Amino acid sequence: MTNLTIAKINSAQDYLDSLRGRKLKLYLMGEPVDDITTHPIILPSINAMAATYRLAEEAPELATVVSPLTGERISRFLHVCQSADDLVMQNKMQRRLGQLTGTCFQRCVGMDAINALYSVSYEIDEAYQTSYHQRFLAFLKEMHLQNCVIGGAMTDVKGDRSLAPHEQADPDLFVRITRRTAEGVYISGAKAHQTGCLNAHYMLVMPTMRLGEHDRDYAIIGAIPVDAEGITYIYGRQSCDTRSLEPGSIDVGNAQYGGQEAMVIFDNAFIPNEWIFMDGEYDFAALLVDRFTAYHRRSYVCKSGVGDVVIGAAAAVAEMNGVEKASHIKDKLVEMTHLNETVYATGIAASYQGYATKSGCFLCDSMLANTCKHHVTKMPYEISRLAQDLAGGMVATMPSEQDLNHPEIGQLIRKYLKGKASVPTEDRMRMLRLIENLTLGRNAVGYLTESLHGAGSPQAQRVQIARLMQLEYKKRLATVLAGIELPADKAAVVEELGSYFERVFKPA
Amino acid sequence: MTNLTIAKINSAQDYLDSLRGRKLKLYLMGEPVDDITTHPIILPSINAMAATYRLAEEAPELATVVSPLTGERISRFLHVCQSADDLVMQNKMQRRLGQLTGTCFQRCVGMDAINALYSVSYEIDEAYQTSYHQRFLAFLKEMHLQNCVIGGAMTDVKGDRSLAPHEQADPDLFVRITRRTAEGVYISGAKAHQTGCLNAHYMLVMPTMRLGEHDRDYAIIGAIPVDAEGITYIYGRQSCDTRSLEPGSIDVGNAQYGGQEAMVIFDNAFIPNEWIFMDGEYDFAALLVDRFTAYHRRSYVCKSGVGDVVIGAAAAVAEMNGVEKASHIKDKLVEMTHLNETVYATGIAASYQGYATKSGCFLCDSMLANTCKHHVTKMPYEISRLAQDLAGGMVATMPSEQDLNHPEIGQLIRKYLKGKASVPTEDRMRMLRLIENLTLGRNAVGYLTESLHGAGSPQAQRVQIARLMQLEYKKRLATVLAGIELPADKAAVVEELGSYFERVFKPA
Amino acid sequence: MTNLTIAKINSAQDYLDSLRGRKLKLYLMGEPVDDITTHPIILPSINAMAATYRLAEEAPELATVVSPLTGERISRFLHVCQSADDLVMQNKMQRRLGQLTGTCFQRCVGMDAINALYSVSYEIDEAYQTSYHQRFLAFLKEMHLQNCVIGGAMTDVKGDRSLAPHEQADPDLFVRITRRTAEGVYISGAKAHQTGCLNAHYMLVMPTMRLGEHDRDYAIIGAIPVDAEGITYIYGRQSCDTRSLEPGSIDVGNAQYGGQEAMVIFDNAFIPNEWIFMDGEYDFAALLVDRFTAYHRRSYVCKSGVGDVVIGAAAAVAEMNGVEKASHIKDKLVEMTHLNETVYATGIAASYQGYATKSGCFLCDSMLANTCKHHVTKMPYEISRLAQDLAGGMVATMPSEQDLNHPEIGQLIRKYLKGKASVPTEDRMRMLRLIENLTLGRNAVGYLTESLHGAGSPQAQRVQIARLMQLEYKKRLATVLAGIELPADKAAVVEELGSYFERVFKPA
Amino acid sequence: MTNLTIAKINSAQDYLDSLRGRKLKLYLMGEPVDDITTHPIILPSINAMAATYRLAEEAPELATVVSPLTGERISRFLHVCQSADDLVMQNKMQRRLGQLTGTCFQRCVGMDAINALYSVSYEIDEAYQTSYHQRFLAFLKEMHLQNCVIGGAMTDVKGDRSLAPHEQADPDLFVRITRRTAEGVYISGAKAHQTGCLNAHYMLVMPTMRLGEHDRDYAIIGAIPVDAEGITYIYGRQSCDTRSLEPGSIDVGNAQYGGQEAMVIFDNAFIPNEWIFMDGEYDFAALLVDRFTAYHRRSYVCKSGVGDVVIGAAAAVAEMNGVEKASHIKDKLVEMTHLNETVYATGIAASYQGYATKSGCFLCDSMLANTCKHHVTKMPYEISRLAQDLAGGMVATMPSEQDLNHPEIGQLIRKYLKGKASVPTEDRMRMLRLIENLTLGRNAVGYLTESLHGAGSPQAQRVQIARLMQLEYKKRLATVLAGIELPADKAAVVEELGSYFERVFKPA
Repeated sequence: MTNLTIAKINSAQDYLDSLRGRKLKLYLMGEPVDDITTHPIILPSINAMAATYRLAEEAPELATVVSPLTGERISRFLHVCQSADDLVMQNKMQRRLGQLTGTCFQRCVGMDAINALYSVSYEIDEAYQTSYHQRFLAFLKEMHLQNCVIGGAMTDVKGDRSLAPHEQADPDLFVRITRRTAEGVYISGAKAHQTGCLNAHYMLVMPTMRLGEHDRDYAIIGAIPVDAEGITYIYGRQSCDTRSLEPGSIDVGNAQYGGQEAMVIFDNAFIPNEWIFMDGEYDFAALLVDRFTAYHRRSYVCKSGVGDVVIGAAAAVAEMNGVEKASHIKDKLVEMTHLNETVYATGIAASYQGYATKSGCFLCDSMLANTCKHHVTKMPYEISRLAQDLAGGMVATMPSEQDLNHPEIGQLIRKYLKGKASVPTEDRMRMLRLIENLTLGRNAVGYLTESLHGAGSPQAQRVQIARLMQLEYKKRLATVLAGIELPADKAAVVEELGSYFERVFKPA
Repeated sequence: MTNLTIAKINSAQDYLDSLRGRKLKLYLMGEPVDDITTHPIILPSINAMAATYRLAEEAPELATVVSPLTGERISRFLHVCQSADDLVMQNKMQRRLGQLTGTCFQRCVGMDAINALYSVSYEIDEAYQTSYHQRFLAFLKEMHLQNCVIGGAMTDVKGDRSLAPHEQADPDLFVRITRRTAEGVYISGAKAHQTGCLNAHYMLVMPTMRLGEHDRDYAIIGAIPVDAEGITYIYGRQSCDTRSLEPGSIDVGNAQYGGQEAMVIFDNAFIPNEWIFMDGEYDFAALLVDRFTAYHRRSYVCKSGVGDVVIGAAAAVAEMNGVEKASHIKDKLVEMTHLNETVYATGIAASYQGYATKSGCFLCDSMLANTCKHHVTKMPYEISRLAQDLAGGMVATMPSEQDLNHPEIGQLIRKYLKGKASVPTEDRMRMLRLIENLTLGRNAVGYLTESLHGAGSPQAQRVQIARLMQLEYKKRLATVLAGIELPADKAAVVEELGSYFERVFKPA
Repeated sequence: MTNLTIAKINSAQDYLDSLRGRKLKLYLMGEPVDDITTHPIILPSINAMAATYRLAEEAPELATVVSPLTGERISRFLHVCQSADDLVMQNKMQRRLGQLTGTCFQRCVGMDAINALYSVSYEIDEAYQTSYHQRFLAFLKEMHLQNCVIGGAMTDVKGDRSLAPHEQADPDLFVRITRRTAEGVYISGAKAHQTGCLNAHYMLVMPTMRLGEHDRDYAIIGAIPVDAEGITYIYGRQSCDTRSLEPGSIDVGNAQYGGQEAMVIFDNAFIPNEWIFMDGEYDFAALLVDRFTAYHRRSYVCKSGVGDVVIGAAAAVAEMNGVEKASHIKDKLVEMTHLNETVYATGIAASYQGYATKSGCFLCDSMLANTCKHHVTKMPYEISRLAQDLAGGMVATMPSEQDLNHPEIGQLIRKYLKGKASVPTEDRMRMLRLIENLTLGRNAVGYLTESLHGAGSPQAQRVQIARLMQLEYKKRLATVLAGIELPADKAAVVEELGSYFERVFKPA
Repeated sequence: MTNLTIAKINSAQDYLDSLRGRKLKLYLMGEPVDDITTHPIILPSINAMAATYRLAEEAPELATVVSPLTGERISRFLHVCQSADDLVMQNKMQRRLGQLTGTCFQRCVGMDAINALYSVSYEIDEAYQTSYHQRFLAFLKEMHLQNCVIGGAMTDVKGDRSLAPHEQADPDLFVRITRRTAEGVYISGAKAHQTGCLNAHYMLVMPTMRLGEHDRDYAIIGAIPVDAEGITYIYGRQSCDTRSLEPGSIDVGNAQYGGQEAMVIFDNAFIPNEWIFMDGEYDFAALLVDRFTAYHRRSYVCKSGVGDVVIGAAAAVAEMNGVEKASHIKDKLVEMTHLNETVYATGIAASYQGYATKSGCFLCDSMLANTCKHHVTKMPYEISRLAQDLAGGMVATMPSEQDLNHPEIGQLIRKYLKGKASVPTEDRMRMLRLIENLTLGRNAVGYLTESLHGAGSPQAQRVQIARLMQLEYKKRLATVLAGIELPADKAAVVEELGSYFERVFKPA
């Protein structure tokens, strides 16, 4: 069986230690990387993940639970929700981590994947008398014992988007089983823009969309160690990524924290039977995707935490510029807050309205989760624009840190970039660089582009809202009020609320 | 004491009966009105209120509770919230009633007023050793026994807005105590655009804003029967109000339901001591307004129920026009739904995040309540615009119902305004008139203008968001991430979350 | 030949006189109307049309031209544009008339129709050696001699929108030729929501969309007197229309001016040969619609004139409320102005970029005209919402004019609805009623719903922008900058700008 | 006198040659730069400027004029507008250069400065019998003879924004005269984020805002060679600037073109008398700023040219992804175009409405110029967001160019990042990198942040719109329509249109 060799991780330090000495086949800007824990471009993403362990140490009520499988305290990211409150607490932890890191801390995909898989494996078993759910529970218990990081690998590279997986010219354009043995299966293919894989311990590989009967080999869900044989990683570039290679800590904007996205290529990588949680049940692929995206779209509440940082930075720089009393400045901060709280409120509303699946695991409301994520595809862009507005043009024209440190030129910068008397020029520059980082630079990738496309691009939410919006029910409401006689066949069902409204009008 | 003569109202029918035979001094379009229950312009607003009783009969879990004061089942509108779930259930009932009536059912002001008053009277007593809270409990028990309708009268006419109440040229421009006797007080003044007073049984009179020490006579809270001596009502006009006087049921758009707003003028009206819940404690006026508006801004979730009707009507008319399959039509319905669910989600999030006041009564989260209401000042306008888009120009150029009924002309209309073959022309016209009603006509007042100004105009929410947005906390987040050393005095408080975030990060 | 009996109209008074004594078959709310000039609901629309003559008297440079056909000064509404400046002057006149009337003055359809027809008749002749253009010139000269009002009737009722005209179950659902004689043709069918027909002298009947070869009988363009035999009019209802029947001049909001829309039903109405300008050339129907909508979409610049009134009313009422100094009030007025000037600027830009057609007549730029109109489908709604914001809730809850005039109640209203000391309560009520009129009432139909649907609903503009947006050209720009080698076939055409950009980069 | 040694520049090549061998005191990332023409980070900005000369060669009608001062053909950027058409042609040239470079070509500030200065020097002379205008004409003639590049230096670093220049703790925080001699003046201070100075030949130094009588030493306008003694330049950092230092041409996004912004520090730099165009006439500083910003705000029409590239890139990548037929994709391209054309239309409308100043030089309409610029502070952000939407997440997670070129890894990327069969993976990557460049990378600085702050931040436009919006005129329109009697003092002026509307209603 597989290499379950990680001792329980009890702290951020344990976590950092756990990443050392692994052999990964990883390329970054054309070069192999031996040790991710010392690479300046990768380190900030490891720090962001480590923050999830640090929060567990500092605020255990927020960031941990007692595992029902082991009885020990573990990260909330490994917990399967037993109640709507559990769903809500995920959101609260997410916002807090967004505040503390100002970036994507990359651990939600795995959390949402285990929650989705919990109920889907249960329902596959129910339909096909398989035993995926028990296998999954065993896997999950192991994870709880290790208190480790699970990544979720879902997004296939997709090739020609008008063709099904089995119809592609190259069969590898969706991850698939290439070979079966008595011990397990071998998979090939690639997952694109994988958030937080290199700093994880295991990945859950899952299909990316609805599959048909000819796509059976693509209907594979399984767990695999990040350092398994047959996996190649190519690190994704981010705006301003090489600033992390420069000396100093100003121009990089946020010296400590950053996101991470990589391409993950499987070349006959092995998954043992015990870690296979779907194999061929193509008709459950859509359900998995639905459940996962419901959880994950509401997980974007994390961006309200990053938004708190953006608002704070904008307010700070306005103060440093000496204009914080102007009514239009204050009004823009209110607007940013209004938008930011909308992201938070719609997300937690989806969680609060959560309900039990047959497996007992709680699922959030999909309509509100999609409403939340759809706002996330727009509001951070507007918040970001307003932050640049408050920052002033200097955010994009400022001299470099090396200039500031230059013996001659540095004096000129300190003289001329002085704002309010009490604020050192360097502090003002630091705050402006943080805003650059969040709106154009490295963490703009997480705050903006990932907000747009993560958990599904805008149109994916619109499709889902269209599926859930119950027009028949709403048309009946209007028909009755307009004084139109309902046709007999519709009158009969006038009291049917449909799934969404049934949940809405159910006593809390 | 006062005329507590109403037997317990157990049904919509009981309610309608309870309104008969009262002597009100009411003017409508220059004429006195003897019996409100038979006046065609007023009747729809009574029907809307009656719907709250009908829902209690049909869905008791949604619209009633067991009174902790009497042990009997009463309307949820009379209930003081004992939990966050109670707050949430108010929202759910509100959305349902919006769906069933397509208008403002006018009973939320009273509900939110008793909730606010419950905790404020408790806190005044605590500060001043008064006994308002006990008086209020007795009053509330009486209301529960009657299961009647309480209106809340808050908005003074205000005169010159740059002056405090006591500074106004005319002292009556804010409601005030004019005389005191051993039995109680007499009040004069006027409350503007009072929603749902004539169809209520009692009104709670409350101050409208922060008061100063010279405004003591304005610091009066008390209950008064709607038919008390000294009260004059002038009915407010609404767009298209007189269509209710025309024969037929098409052009009126929503023949059954409508809102009601009136000016209420007190001319030395009497409030007995037992029903006085604040008298002179001017320093608590702001707290009352804060609490009330927190509840009431989230009560605008009702508009998502009306929004369901608007969406349903737009979908229905698109179908009648034969264009429901067009991608842009479907996309507009998705957009309307996305906006509408945002109103709902932000409102219930405020309720879910509710917390106990010292009195035990639960209060919703003010930041999210303001976020909700602020969306309500915009989104219904956009939903309404999209509904007109889907309706087509006919919504504003259609011939009258009398033309349709004309022996000769009617045939032409039926021939030429035919849409899809299976839909009678009259049905299409009815649906278009409903959209007109909701976007330009009588219920546009409730769906649009009241959404804008009710519970405070847009700027009022922005002021409140500004007060709650905790910039100091957010600036610290940014300062830490920017690598700026915190000044000693701020470093000390780096862990302080402030009231909003303390609540956010509190375990659910 | 036809009854060309109108003497030249030289003044608003002449115009009013010209409408008397005509026999029209017109129904309004189920009743026949004998004399439109005395009907209180119709009169405001006649006044609005008369304003076009009054402006000609008062500002001849703005509202008249010297006819190239007669050498006499005539209304600019009858002029065929000889230059881009002529196009621009139409817009300026439109804005001014919007300012003076606060409504739709209903004369642009005819203006835009004669301009479109001028070039299209020319091009049909060129293709088919017909002589429509000469006929049209003769007709136009006659119109110039009379200086009368021409309406344009385009919008068919359309029936099932998925079927072509000849495929409809009822052949009359698009206007068509039913019979031909040596003298001319007879037409049947109906035109929906016809703006300004009853107060016109002639109508130009035109097809509403692209036609196919089986639709030849629908390919008819011709002129017909408004009072011709065989035409029935049914007056369209507008929000609050019956307030014009009430005594007084306050509640009606804008006592003088209003719009007019009617259904026009042709039952074998006759068009003489001399006034037929297309008969069967179905392949030119699309060109006509294109040209007409290009002109007409930019004609919505008139709404910026109405917008000036809305902004003025909002500013006035803010002042009356004593809040005009608040920064958020001022900022909202700026926002309204910004939006309003965008409508104006995009419209006149389309005109300024006008160019000569083969006939010599100038045509505006279609891309910018569509950009203008598309803003018009949204911006007036937002301006209107902001006006209601500045007005306060009173705009939708105010007592009636009869109450104000009531001996007893009137005193109370004057006392309690007093704003700023120097402003009579009645003035404040008048201003609020004007805002109600423009945002919910009668002129909201013109300012909002007609802005949405007139000259094509929003999607029609998007379709047109899609057709004109020259993606191939733009993709080439990006391809070159991305450093991608252009495929040989595209490299060859890299310098082709396409029609829109050719015009853009042509020397002015 | 000064070193007027540049021979006439007749081509892009001449221009590049003219920049060689100059001695500039320039620092970039802490290092002095000897030769700007070979520095990889600076070169793209020189190329962008060179494109203005190349366009002059290729499209002389668009990009050149015959100088009225020399009779020779010169760059349109050096031309003083003699007509509204001249203003419009500036916009057309700007859009074309935006299309060709995909960035800011940095030559508009100088163009707008000479136009503003032309009329302001004339009016100062008129007021004070000075002879600045003649001096300026002589200077301009010299520039025409050289056909060189003039930059405009306006934005002072400002220090504490609540204090006037003379009140600042450090008097150098606004550029000022430090010493006078018989030959001229010496200036000290700094200009922030100076667009395109290093690749210019001369700079016009101008005050940045309204000055008071104690600010006389700050009221200095003059010309100075870029390589004059006493000037230090510090190059501003841009997002992803160091990608220009990497090998290859993909990751940089737009290998050829980029913007340039630097801090310019004057340390007793000398301006000879002949080149001084204001010295102490502080009361004309505001007029200069007004005129300059009117021109310059409408110059942002250039962004519609860059927008064409963004739209083209988004359309191209959608096609490469194989999704160009999806209705939502097409609709987003329409939306981008609609926004982009709005920028163009409002800008050229401002130019078309231009009018002659006393000096004969034409000035654009300020209201519409501000309307244009205000849209520019928002629309490019939304266009950019939509471009990222169409690009897909790959735009921010793609492997590096070095990975693509890696012998082993490169194959994997070519296999897995394949989109549509006919498109090489490298081309798809190039297009995605161009979008990254425009929305997050180097040219996002020009397309987004500069759009926000250049020519004044958003609030500056709102202040200007507020000044121009003529509320008194608009209130009168509303007052008349509301039926309110005009007060005698206002009735008298009812016909006054005010400056903006006078221009609007003036015959074209």
